Amino acid sequence: MSSTKATQLFQQVYDHARETSLLESTLALLEWDEHTGLPEQAGLYRADQVTFLSGLTHKRKTDSQLGEWLSELSNSELAEEPNSVLGASIRGWKRDFDRNIQLPESLVKRTAHAISVGQQIWASTKGNNDFDTFLPYLKEIVSLRREEATLLAQNRVCRYDSLLDQYEEEATTAEVDLLFSQLRDQLVNLVQSIGNSEHGPTGRSLQGTFDIEKQKQLSRWVAEKIGYQFERGRLDETQHPFCTSLGPNDHRILTRYFQDSFSSGLYGTLHEAGHAMYEQGMPTDWFGMPAGAAASLGVHESQSRLWENMIGRSRAFWQWCLPEAVKFFPQLAEFSIEQIYGDLNRVAPSLIRIEADEATYNLHILIRFELEQELIDGDLACEDLPQAWSDRYQSYLGIRPANHSEGVMQDVHWAAGLIGYFPTYTLGNIFAGQLMVAAEQELGELDGMISQGDFRPLLEWLRAKVHKHGRCFKPTLLISNACHAPLSSKPLMDYLEKKLKPLYHIA
Amino acid sequence: MSSTKATQLFQQVYDHARETSLLESTLALLEWDEHTGLPEQAGLYRADQVTFLSGLTHKRKTDSQLGEWLSELSNSELAEEPNSVLGASIRGWKRDFDRNIQLPESLVKRTAHAISVGQQIWASTKGNNDFDTFLPYLKEIVSLRREEATLLAQNRVCRYDSLLDQYEEEATTAEVDLLFSQLRDQLVNLVQSIGNSEHGPTGRSLQGTFDIEKQKQLSRWVAEKIGYQFERGRLDETQHPFCTSLGPNDHRILTRYFQDSFSSGLYGTLHEAGHAMYEQGMPTDWFGMPAGAAASLGVHESQSRLWENMIGRSRAFWQWCLPEAVKFFPQLAEFSIEQIYGDLNRVAPSLIRIEADEATYNLHILIRFELEQELIDGDLACEDLPQAWSDRYQSYLGIRPANHSEGVMQDVHWAAGLIGYFPTYTLGNIFAGQLMVAAEQELGELDGMISQGDFRPLLEWLRAKVHKHGRCFKPTLLISNACHAPLSSKPLMDYLEKKLKPLYHIA
Repeated sequence: MSSTKATQLFQQVYDHARETSLLESTLALLEWDEHTGLPEQAGLYRADQVTFLSGLTHKRKTDSQLGEWLSELSNSELAEEPNSVLGASIRGWKRDFDRNIQLPESLVKRTAHAISVGQQIWASTKGNNDFDTFLPYLKEIVSLRREEATLLAQNRVCRYDSLLDQYEEEATTAEVDLLFSQLRDQLVNLVQSIGNSEHGPTGRSLQGTFDIEKQKQLSRWVAEKIGYQFERGRLDETQHPFCTSLGPNDHRILTRYFQDSFSSGLYGTLHEAGHAMYEQGMPTDWFGMPAGAAASLGVHESQSRLWENMIGRSRAFWQWCLPEAVKFFPQLAEFSIEQIYGDLNRVAPSLIRIEADEATYNLHILIRFELEQELIDGDLACEDLPQAWSDRYQSYLGIRPANHSEGVMQDVHWAAGLIGYFPTYTLGNIFAGQLMVAAEQELGELDGMISQGDFRPLLEWLRAKVHKHGRCFKPTLLISNACHAPLSSKPLMDYLEKKLKPLYHIA
Repeated sequence: MSSTKATQLFQQVYDHARETSLLESTLALLEWDEHTGLPEQAGLYRADQVTFLSGLTHKRKTDSQLGEWLSELSNSELAEEPNSVLGASIRGWKRDFDRNIQLPESLVKRTAHAISVGQQIWASTKGNNDFDTFLPYLKEIVSLRREEATLLAQNRVCRYDSLLDQYEEEATTAEVDLLFSQLRDQLVNLVQSIGNSEHGPTGRSLQGTFDIEKQKQLSRWVAEKIGYQFERGRLDETQHPFCTSLGPNDHRILTRYFQDSFSSGLYGTLHEAGHAMYEQGMPTDWFGMPAGAAASLGVHESQSRLWENMIGRSRAFWQWCLPEAVKFFPQLAEFSIEQIYGDLNRVAPSLIRIEADEATYNLHILIRFELEQELIDGDLACEDLPQAWSDRYQSYLGIRPANHSEGVMQDVHWAAGLIGYFPTYTLGNIFAGQLMVAAEQELGELDGMISQGDFRPLLEWLRAKVHKHGRCFKPTLLISNACHAPLSSKPLMDYLEKKLKPLYHIA
């Protein structure tokens, strides 16, 4: 093929994809709105809207003309450099097409409908611990995702691999398992030592009553200071924090506030702002091309967890933030930076994943990772999930949930059809651990900058090493390029031990 | 055609239309979101989304297969009863198809883009009175609407008729002109007598500082009490109040609050709640069929203006509302019902239409009606609009705007491409005048119920006579059926004189 012809063909595919992304970003708005105050009785029609647009989108993505163009393009010279914008886009489009073409439109539409309704039912039943009402919807969603996984499994070892691969390109259950098992043994040791320690933070500075309007103002202030661009986003409230992109300049974050905790809403904001700053750091001109999308969910989580924990829960961060936080909550004035830093890093087995400390957090993920595999490849029935959930919490963390809302119903993910997604949180922690080491090697010690509220050097480093590459590199290659090191959980473990051992006087 | 065949065909068209309305209601969400906090930089992409979905919608609405089905259906027995659900739907679909098929997709898409961007530019320039920046966008919109009007004009006397007809089925400029000219002379007389009176309300009770959070709570409370269903809607803030339907159970209202006025936000809410209650009163099963849509914008405005003014500014309403309003705004306790009632009905020439009293309001409409005709059928250039606007205000109301935001830039309508829409406000006032007379004839005096906060009988009467018929009847037939009387502006004038003359001691 001539190079003019290839360039023309690329433009045709890009135009087609750009229109598809107009539909997909509209779908994202339908979903955002579903989580920010959809009228009580509007849910079923909303599900119909989502289903219809999902069908349209799927039709476009499996258009046989598109398939032909992509086959030709994949053999053109434009595809030769796999990590270039054009090469990576062609590879991404081809990969998506080959996957989508295996899924019948009816399955895609049934799934879209089930997860739109499922999330609404989850939201309305969670508060009452009403798993029985939620159960048939969950079963339907799991069954649809199993059906999808079966269709996509083909040469894979197990069905779960084909779900995992959607969120983390080319990751396999076996690899993730290996990585997690190393981490698990060390984490269990660390958590045990902490449990045996007679020292440690009390958590007292986090308790009290914190006006929600003030929490909103503080969250907004912090998000802006770390580099989230409000002119290209907005901050709202919802039941389960998330981040969503509705366009190249519209990356919205959502959190939730509790009156008896000032950290919940703030760290929800920091986490989601981390996601959104990743999206805001991608070249806007590439929007609608695979090259202009996130490398993977693991990489996405590395950004959210890095800002939430490695930055947001650092001593340096509170050296900077406490004087401002005191303006909103004068009661914090009676605590030292050291106390607040300690309390925000207190380790204790707990039931709620998104409130968990950094050490036990990965055990929460492990539980979900194991249960998901059993749901998709094994014999675990949805009816038996609450029991299996509780048993697993007992065995890994030594505690059992007293009800479903602090147990199996706590996360929106399964109601949203997100199965195979959870492991990316721990992958994100691992990536973040590596990125922090590399950033400090190149920028020098970060604490000095953070304690001055100067987040720019770090953000710019992340933009240069991660954000601006979009999906040009496969996730592990992107991270190892950025860090000049192969994938390893060691930096994460080193970080956790370095932070937590002194707090608990562990040698 | 057999009746089975006709029924089948109807179902096909309905399925097709229902899918189109899934797209249209999604478009309505894109627009709602554009007015409730779209990030500053997200506007252009939003315009692309709206344009793309408008194109898809137009393609569906001009599908030649649909045209064939409709031709057949129009000749079937189902079309024989023009005011039945089926007959009215077939008539409505055919009317819409015949109109849409005359408009090229490119014009529809260019218009969608221009009004999406136009509204954003209007919103960002209005505050600075920056007509010059807004001008090229306005010119583009007016030129596109002229182009559309030309295409649709065909057998019509003037281009403006073809715009008017989109909002008010079969209304003509000549008819509206006749109706308005009767009203104008009497209104001008009334306003002059009022101007010459030495008596009248001072407006003092409306002045002061009114906490915006409290205003929101009062607005919400009133909307709920008069019958707006929050489980099928929501109340938000925006720059220019409006109401929009995103589905059969999702009718949202938006208002805006000023700290120095408690009436602005509240009456915005009442007005929009009137619109929304009309939508909420239509049979949800008919959603997506013409029969299940509003009869016309004039009828729509009759509902909003009736609740806003004839109910909301009545003495009886304040007998009920004042004790509650005092809980929110204790400063109101120093005023009598009579004072507040008087102040809310104070007549004075003013510059802002949506703040205008009921007597001068129709003169504001008349000005727009005349200017629109000149823009579409005459020689008035957009450049000359500010001058023409000011001159017309001078001549009808004796005052001139000091700047564009209280002049030609005050309304969002033209920026939103809504040309031919304004006259429906006065038609709505006329319809509302007739409906109130008929309601009192059938229900007995309403004041007793209203002063007890019992809005149910009136709402149910409106539902039975207006809401539940959707678009089954043409607007004038619907109103004359409901009122057992032909179209007339007399009830409106009687109502205004009966209310305003005593306030100004006019014999």
